[in-house]
Amino acid sequence: MMSLSMVHPSVHPIEAPPVTEHAVAMPRQTLEDTQGMPGTLGGFLLRFLQFSFALLSLSVMATTSDFPSVTAFRYLVAAVSLQSLWSLSLAVADIYAILVRRGYRNVRIVRLFSIGDGITSTLTFSAACASAGITVLIGNDLNDCAQNHCSRFETATAMAFMSWFAASPSFILNFWTLASK
Amino acid sequence: MMSLSMVHPSVHPIEAPPVTEHAVAMPRQTLEDTQGMPGTLGGFLLRFLQFSFALLSLSVMATTSDFPSVTAFRYLVAAVSLQSLWSLSLAVADIYAILVRRGYRNVRIVRLFSIGDGITSTLTFSAACASAGITVLIGNDLNDCAQNHCSRFETATAMAFMSWFAASPSFILNFWTLASK
Repeated sequence: MMSLSMVHPSVHPIEAPPVTEHAVAMPRQTLEDTQGMPGTLGGFLLRFLQFSFALLSLSVMATTSDFPSVTAFRYLVAAVSLQSLWSLSLAVADIYAILVRRGYRNVRIVRLFSIGDGITSTLTFSAACASAGITVLIGNDLNDCAQNHCSRFETATAMAFMSWFAASPSFILNFWTLASK
Repeated sequence: MMSLSMVHPSVHPIEAPPVTEHAVAMPRQTLEDTQGMPGTLGGFLLRFLQFSFALLSLSVMATTSDFPSVTAFRYLVAAVSLQSLWSLSLAVADIYAILVRRGYRNVRIVRLFSIGDGITSTLTFSAACASAGITVLIGNDLNDCAQNHCSRFETATAMAFMSWFAASPSFILNFWTLASK
């Protein structure tokens, strides 16, 4: 799967180390610099959107007094907290890469980013779906919005979905880059 | 992204058509025959598991009389119906491919399978998450299992998750194959 043999060995033929599957420390394993990849301005914007929406979802949900009584809402708070921490870390990493004018082109780094993105975005999506199920149950099926913070629950759920929408391109792009090397 | 230039043009140099991005009708665009890919026994087994679990989930949910009162459960029924139809179609296609001893190696076919897998598995996963949220709300938060079919709801949700677990390898494998060409 991970054939590294196509990676421009002729650019610096003297330095070229032997091609092995785990030779991830080689600085010559460059990946193409697509916008949205880690270390690009597009990548930073995606991270910023993920972080903002996750933080908004967390804040809106935290302002409701009764969210801990529903398991799905507690799960949503945990998932968007993780998502916001992950996205913030990678946004900082992107800013650093932009400032020093270097992209993240190492295979191991992109694999790590891809796995992390897959886990956090799946968690955020599942939490958003569970919260949406509860919100629709309260609002439409039980018609019990009078004594529940329906609009806040709905806003928090929508923000979590937006965070997932922003996280998907990062994951798909990283995964595609990893597979197409 | 879709560089098709590596695809063995030297096997039949006389027939080789000009390489363009949309030359999907070329019979020489072969993909590797990994187990789990469409047209292999592994692929058929994955499809069979997806179909069985989706059908189980549908049947168990349909035996409860009060599932239409909850939107998330109606959505689950719709999603696993779609998943079972999609998986059944692709299981039949796999059987055909095994019987005539040919794999699906066309780029357009694999792309279609990949997009369909992505859509159906995302729908199944979201429906399973929404149902899980409701089920946990009824069982743990409200402690109202006495007048609800908790165990059936839980079984249907679990079967939908199993169907998603079986659908993920198909999607990831197709997507990886598409990207790594």
